[in-house]
Amino acid sequence: MSEVFAARRTRLREQCAAVGSTAVLVSHPANVRYLCGGSPTGAALLLGPTDDVLVRPPATAADPMVGAPIDDLRVQELGAPHGDAAVAAADLAATAGAGRLAVEEHHLTVARHRALRSIAPRLELTDLAGAVEQQRIVKDDDEISALRIAAEIADQALGELLESILVGRTERHLALELERRLVDHGADGPAFATSVGAGPHSGRSGHVPTDRRVEEGDFLTVCLGAGYRGYRCEVGRTFVIGTSPADWQIELYDLVFAAQRAGREALTPGTAYCEVDRVTRQVLAAAGREETLGARVGHGVGLENDEDPRLAPGAMGKLDACVPVTVEPGVHLPGRGGVRIDDTLVVRPEADGGPELLTITTKELLAL
Amino acid sequence: MSEVFAARRTRLREQCAAVGSTAVLVSHPANVRYLCGGSPTGAALLLGPTDDVLVRPPATAADPMVGAPIDDLRVQELGAPHGDAAVAAADLAATAGAGRLAVEEHHLTVARHRALRSIAPRLELTDLAGAVEQQRIVKDDDEISALRIAAEIADQALGELLESILVGRTERHLALELERRLVDHGADGPAFATSVGAGPHSGRSGHVPTDRRVEEGDFLTVCLGAGYRGYRCEVGRTFVIGTSPADWQIELYDLVFAAQRAGREALTPGTAYCEVDRVTRQVLAAAGREETLGARVGHGVGLENDEDPRLAPGAMGKLDACVPVTVEPGVHLPGRGGVRIDDTLVVRPEADGGPELLTITTKELLAL
Repeated sequence: MSEVFAARRTRLREQCAAVGSTAVLVSHPANVRYLCGGSPTGAALLLGPTDDVLVRPPATAADPMVGAPIDDLRVQELGAPHGDAAVAAADLAATAGAGRLAVEEHHLTVARHRALRSIAPRLELTDLAGAVEQQRIVKDDDEISALRIAAEIADQALGELLESILVGRTERHLALELERRLVDHGADGPAFATSVGAGPHSGRSGHVPTDRRVEEGDFLTVCLGAGYRGYRCEVGRTFVIGTSPADWQIELYDLVFAAQRAGREALTPGTAYCEVDRVTRQVLAAAGREETLGARVGHGVGLENDEDPRLAPGAMGKLDACVPVTVEPGVHLPGRGGVRIDDTLVVRPEADGGPELLTITTKELLAL
Repeated sequence: MSEVFAARRTRLREQCAAVGSTAVLVSHPANVRYLCGGSPTGAALLLGPTDDVLVRPPATAADPMVGAPIDDLRVQELGAPHGDAAVAAADLAATAGAGRLAVEEHHLTVARHRALRSIAPRLELTDLAGAVEQQRIVKDDDEISALRIAAEIADQALGELLESILVGRTERHLALELERRLVDHGADGPAFATSVGAGPHSGRSGHVPTDRRVEEGDFLTVCLGAGYRGYRCEVGRTFVIGTSPADWQIELYDLVFAAQRAGREALTPGTAYCEVDRVTRQVLAAAGREETLGARVGHGVGLENDEDPRLAPGAMGKLDACVPVTVEPGVHLPGRGGVRIDDTLVVRPEADGGPELLTITTKELLAL
């Protein structure tokens, strides 16, 4: 594995050297992990003029990454217990003779940036911007394998829940049970806070579970994700509770399903991000149901649950092969509830069979 | 309640006006919540020259604070779905004629700060620094009541776990069960990721639960916290599994207990933060067991689990009455495990009976 991380760092270093930076400081945890395989809490990664160094707080501190496969780069522990790894790394860069250091201005706070300037006043600080995030968009086979396993875990947890009795249980309990099952099946943990919405709460994006109990006749929307080796996958489904759905429920479900399918089918290399949003949104708009859709119909997944690309109006860029994204439209009718359907897929060329669906839980409207 | 929030804002505005700022922009979520009773995801609070405005993304987006008691201040929704509330608030401040705007440089990233400058180039931006965090240190009666309830919930969840069979269960499962029980007893949710460490993992601060099963003869360290109305409390205990503890276990437990008691007894108004750390650390140092203690023996709790003050060497400042803090020393022997004992207490004058212990689970060494 360590060659993979070294190759990623080389690519970043070359890109930065081309615009005149002799060193690069990466502080955003997911980016640190992408470039060296682990990101201890509070660590920062320096790609220096002479070598690469992971600066990290002493290992005695609370550290969820103890034992993670840090690449064979040099690891330097911070001296002071409350020192700042980014500041220490800037100091190292200056000492090693770097002239211009690219930093993540979208991650460093103004106060930390000032501390960097003050410890290394002769270093010229430039903006790395989203260079690592851009590099992370297209995934390699190992990354996609991890996402595939994460998706299997989420599907399993969801499938088991559907076999249990749901009526009378609260949204909170269902969410906690799903999270337990994710861990049972080998997830690092939930990829994000599990959302369960029953009745009037169904169909809402990011609904925080309440003490509302599931009742006969409810729509029930569940959205969950698993993390596996750091990679995060998500799946969302809406069910009907009871014997048979009402007409308005069938109609709304079919509409959201059609919108989601349109979005999924648009996932081919070369399609503009905003086009995926447009074709999905259009189906809902044609039925006059667009207003609760939210700002976008999907997003990239990987080391973060919500990363580039954004599938939204005005998003710049086009899909590549091997980019995993969600497609997750929903409609919520205030006071009544609604439908949300969410899959994670990997963009593939048509010659390879088109988009690869990672989350395979059925999208039929199940009456539970 | 709304007068409480208005009074907090008035105090902050007056403090900023005294140093020449005509407007204040608060972006750190816990600070926003402290000042107006709620903090929708992505919101920013402007204390402007004419009135106070909470700028927030449209309510259709994922928002764990929907329905929270936002004070009766003016709420303005962001127009663009992906706009930045802080940037929009700076624009409002400039339009309202503010000359100098204090912002949270320890929270705003360099990139966001630049966006603020670019939308309001004639506004002078200054640093609010930790002014709101400082104001938050001393709690009022309502805040302490919320903490007291949070502590009761954590104690209940822990107490129930102790009545169940522990041998053979994994750290992960015990942690998930504790989190479920927290919610059962009315917590908003866990205050932080529950830590359960068995055998060689016991006594470690912030240990992330693994698949290690609890065995006879283990030390078992559990650290959990409950959030209630946003306020977060924590409790940590170490137990022995099986019939009777070994001599080394009793010895180590007594040592950590003595250190923790020394720290608790130092919690009187006027005591320096670093003095609480010193008296605790000293007990461990005298036994040659200081090295795994970590950077500090405790910290403040409130709207954040880990907030000012820090009880650490070199920390500047003295305790006031009505400041809730943790005292949580621990010792970890590599390969064998260790002990950690963690309480949340409120600093009170001796005339009022001295420090008020919120987390009342017994600190006897229980053999389970």
